[in-house]
Amino acid sequence: MTEQHPIAVLGGGSFGTALANLLAENGRHVLHWMRDPEQVEAILATRENPRYLKGVKIHADVEPLSDLGAALGASRLVFVALPSSALRQALQPVAELLAGKLLVSTTKGIEAQSFKLMSQILEEIAPQARIGVLSGPNLAKEVAEHALTATVIASEDEALCQQVQAALHGRTFRVYASGDRFGVELGGALKNVYAIMAGMAAALGMGENTKSMLITRALAEMTRFAVHQGANPMTFLGLAGVGDLIVTCSSPKSRNYQVGFALGEGLSLEEAVERLGEVAEGVNTIKVLKAKAEELQVYMPLVTGLHAILFEGRTLEQVIELLMRAEPKTDVDFISTAGF
Amino acid sequence: MTEQHPIAVLGGGSFGTALANLLAENGRHVLHWMRDPEQVEAILATRENPRYLKGVKIHADVEPLSDLGAALGASRLVFVALPSSALRQALQPVAELLAGKLLVSTTKGIEAQSFKLMSQILEEIAPQARIGVLSGPNLAKEVAEHALTATVIASEDEALCQQVQAALHGRTFRVYASGDRFGVELGGALKNVYAIMAGMAAALGMGENTKSMLITRALAEMTRFAVHQGANPMTFLGLAGVGDLIVTCSSPKSRNYQVGFALGEGLSLEEAVERLGEVAEGVNTIKVLKAKAEELQVYMPLVTGLHAILFEGRTLEQVIELLMRAEPKTDVDFISTAGF
Repeated sequence: MTEQHPIAVLGGGSFGTALANLLAENGRHVLHWMRDPEQVEAILATRENPRYLKGVKIHADVEPLSDLGAALGASRLVFVALPSSALRQALQPVAELLAGKLLVSTTKGIEAQSFKLMSQILEEIAPQARIGVLSGPNLAKEVAEHALTATVIASEDEALCQQVQAALHGRTFRVYASGDRFGVELGGALKNVYAIMAGMAAALGMGENTKSMLITRALAEMTRFAVHQGANPMTFLGLAGVGDLIVTCSSPKSRNYQVGFALGEGLSLEEAVERLGEVAEGVNTIKVLKAKAEELQVYMPLVTGLHAILFEGRTLEQVIELLMRAEPKTDVDFISTAGF
Repeated sequence: MTEQHPIAVLGGGSFGTALANLLAENGRHVLHWMRDPEQVEAILATRENPRYLKGVKIHADVEPLSDLGAALGASRLVFVALPSSALRQALQPVAELLAGKLLVSTTKGIEAQSFKLMSQILEEIAPQARIGVLSGPNLAKEVAEHALTATVIASEDEALCQQVQAALHGRTFRVYASGDRFGVELGGALKNVYAIMAGMAAALGMGENTKSMLITRALAEMTRFAVHQGANPMTFLGLAGVGDLIVTCSSPKSRNYQVGFALGEGLSLEEAVERLGEVAEGVNTIKVLKAKAEELQVYMPLVTGLHAILFEGRTLEQVIELLMRAEPKTDVDFISTAGF
């Protein structure tokens, strides 16, 4: 242990809670910030987070609190596990407290207008902070229940990666390092789009060949887009690329998958969103990504097809017909784009 | 259609039969060779292959026959879908008929003594032939039932790839091209090892995080090995790499998966093989691969761990403990090996 400061975890959702527990189990004191004082009270009273992680005991060294200044003031290493919609507004007011901190984002998403990823927003808010991203095939409930899990800490800052590995790596949680922050984070943000597709395929009763084809072509498409923007294609062979994509496309509980499933059953997007009671992140990502892919002229047939189904009134059958009729390309055709 | 010769398919198993049907549906006459004259009679009488592909109607333009010379003499394009154990002995006697042919291997396997892949054996037998490999996430039954499926034709010979695409690509079967024959074929051969691992994990009730971690680390390990031998790492992002790996690790019906499942339930290898009634291909591949990896000094912890369980009397728990305790590495650590 080189650092004995407490560690801050921001966000009282399922993943933040699972992370806080892991850190405490590794012997660290954790300041677990959440906006809602009632949630703090509930955790203090019951040592559980019944709303987001029912049935999991919160470790005694996890200290829930609703005072963000206190959490940040006492810690050097800060995990940011806030919803993408809340991240900017939660942290902007405390920007001056973030200078010099190690900020590790676990939040997936793309800001619509700016096309910024969450760590890029952190960078904008806190230019003096050191920034990293944590991403991988990490269903929060399984992490909390100590299923064997692996994740990636990505940063240009090697010392940051080492500190996160030292703090988080444990008996059931393996932490790999990567220097490709942008690629790792983009993988996490893009996968939600393809979870919608996986849900559709499941609703249509498609088999293993089709599921695997879709995941593989999704991976090729994600990689092509990411490489075009400067990411390392190798990142997509790793945990934060294909690993996270497999988990997300195999997890019927995710909202993205459920939207896709509803669409596959023949519901309209409006009806699907009504059934779910909320908009899934991937729905917004499709819009943003379609526009960006056109602007950059990157070939993304799956995104284009999903956009046509969700927003242009095309049927699933029409889009599948179109995709299968298209000229067969080379298998990993982003190679030429990548320049090697 | 630039070529109007019949097409030969060698091997009356499930995949050969599915391929023959696809080719006939695309308007080609198919000479479908199988060793057993009784199987030929059965197909002629019933227009089904009841032993290997029950319930699928054989197309009228598929002509089953047991005369290998006749099948080869009449055709230029030949698909080789023989079992790996039978390939060499079936084709060596007709070697002189193979000169100038387009030979496409669909057989997965590694010859134990020579560490040769099937297309390398074809090359040895028929140095004057043009050689390709077909591989991908292609469960034969799903192909035959027209589930949307994608595959890869790989060869240094671009004209061969184009001819195979023209002959095979159809409404439900997409054929992508690749120039990395060795990488594509190696992916198909190595995946069987990891199907054993996936079966074990399933028997132990492991969750999605673990499954995804194992598939991803398997992919990294396969890629590291393949790149060390000159394959293109990008191939493993494609259908014949991760695509086939996902299907194989998700298909409880494969023999490799079933051996792993039995081992995960606590049976010994002998007991597992006894339950199955035969040895799975992956069991032999583990032996061969372990030796090769040591010779080449390529780090393959999953292969080493599987070898320890199957042949060195280690328990699954000991190996998992060892794997999880190992120092965390970088996520895609074969990058440095690949030289970029």
